[in-house]
Amino acid sequence: MNTQDLVAEIKRKNSFLCVGLDVDLEKIPEFLLKEEDPIFAFNKAIIDATHTFAVAYKPNIAFYEAQGLKGWKALEKTIAYLNENYPEVFTIADAKRGDIGNTSTMYAKTFFETLDFDSVTVAPYMGRDSVEPFLAFQNKHTILLALTSNPGATDFQTKKVGEEELYKKVLETSKEWKNSHQLMYVVGATQAESLGEIRKILPDAFLLVPGVGAQGGSLQKVCEYGLSKEVGLLINSSRGIIYASNGEDFAQAAGQKAKSLQQEMKEILNAL
Amino acid sequence: MNTQDLVAEIKRKNSFLCVGLDVDLEKIPEFLLKEEDPIFAFNKAIIDATHTFAVAYKPNIAFYEAQGLKGWKALEKTIAYLNENYPEVFTIADAKRGDIGNTSTMYAKTFFETLDFDSVTVAPYMGRDSVEPFLAFQNKHTILLALTSNPGATDFQTKKVGEEELYKKVLETSKEWKNSHQLMYVVGATQAESLGEIRKILPDAFLLVPGVGAQGGSLQKVCEYGLSKEVGLLINSSRGIIYASNGEDFAQAAGQKAKSLQQEMKEILNAL
Repeated sequence: MNTQDLVAEIKRKNSFLCVGLDVDLEKIPEFLLKEEDPIFAFNKAIIDATHTFAVAYKPNIAFYEAQGLKGWKALEKTIAYLNENYPEVFTIADAKRGDIGNTSTMYAKTFFETLDFDSVTVAPYMGRDSVEPFLAFQNKHTILLALTSNPGATDFQTKKVGEEELYKKVLETSKEWKNSHQLMYVVGATQAESLGEIRKILPDAFLLVPGVGAQGGSLQKVCEYGLSKEVGLLINSSRGIIYASNGEDFAQAAGQKAKSLQQEMKEILNAL
Repeated sequence: MNTQDLVAEIKRKNSFLCVGLDVDLEKIPEFLLKEEDPIFAFNKAIIDATHTFAVAYKPNIAFYEAQGLKGWKALEKTIAYLNENYPEVFTIADAKRGDIGNTSTMYAKTFFETLDFDSVTVAPYMGRDSVEPFLAFQNKHTILLALTSNPGATDFQTKKVGEEELYKKVLETSKEWKNSHQLMYVVGATQAESLGEIRKILPDAFLLVPGVGAQGGSLQKVCEYGLSKEVGLLINSSRGIIYASNGEDFAQAAGQKAKSLQQEMKEILNAL
């Protein structure tokens, strides 16, 4: 999917909501455990109940890997289900990968070809030749970690490298990489004020913003500082939506939570 | 496995060689493709032929993931084969993971429990709370990226943060983390001179050193600057060993290459 299609979808749905599929067998409704593939059954129900209100889905790969083969199978089925039934949504493999050249190419193949996601999250520590192999895939997006929402963000990301913080150095440097128009960036919602600084460096890039809700970030503040001319934001909510209820009504409750965030987003978009 | 056992194994075998299992279906001998699981068949033969000369094995997870389910199965079988037949070797999941707290716990479970590796490589960009969840697993090791062997290492890792380079900041900071005695570090062989600097900060930590051979690093130089009191080095070679031949004699050729590196290491250890 290209960025124009994503923007069109955002405008059509009046939503820039991403639903995070951090699916934990210990947290899904117990009655689903008797299903042949409980993780996929959960995801399918969540997706069906929320797709009207969301423009993106983001499976957190760690949760699937931790289940071994059956987790990997559930991930394959989830991305295939999204691509077959809702090809208009943007799909994100939240995998935080990154390695030297030929290994990054293998990771890119995993998520862009074997699984056919639209995008993957990547860590910047190893520099240009660890990221460009992902950017070599056309119509696919690489979402680079910039300023994350966790306390450890202050260990390195906000340390000054010369005149500017490391995360700004990452933003500036990555602009020079080949096919950098296919880059998006992760910026935590707990860092709302920094979004203004980031917009000075990247007026148009899409930012994937986790941390609204469970981690305490504010949607209003994120939008105040982070919206671009063409929206330019994907706000992720995981636990707040998918675990809204753990009863028989879990999907309906997830739909309600997604709808309520979408309504808030609609008001923000209408006020622009 | 704890560090003392690893040191004992190094002394017993007179070797600090790690064999990198970067297994690519396009590079393994063609006659293996008729096997039910060519990747595992290749790994089993390579392991059997090299285990006398190597103290560690390092599957590069990207190469398995890129094959989807069948790659994940081959990885499961490979680590199970190592743990059953050669429990004395140190196993490394080269995965370059790292995410916020509960997600890092899931990645740690993947590699330390679901797959039962002794260690996993982790990227430091997200800071303390992205690494400590890995360190919470007893008798397991977290191998943190410090100074890598690729050209992109100069994009961020060698940039000055205050008085010192970012990679040194990573080393210094990580020493303060909980269970930091379970940390090891990735330092590329192409950065041999920097190993002396690193030893000033970390006199005893184990360093995993890729880049000898294919990437141009020198074993002699790495040892000159990097050896610690208790050896403290694991030198990785991947392509140079596993693709030494792509004929019927591939395993024997890999064994020869491993032996020749082990002989070089033995001389170095004897000269100490």
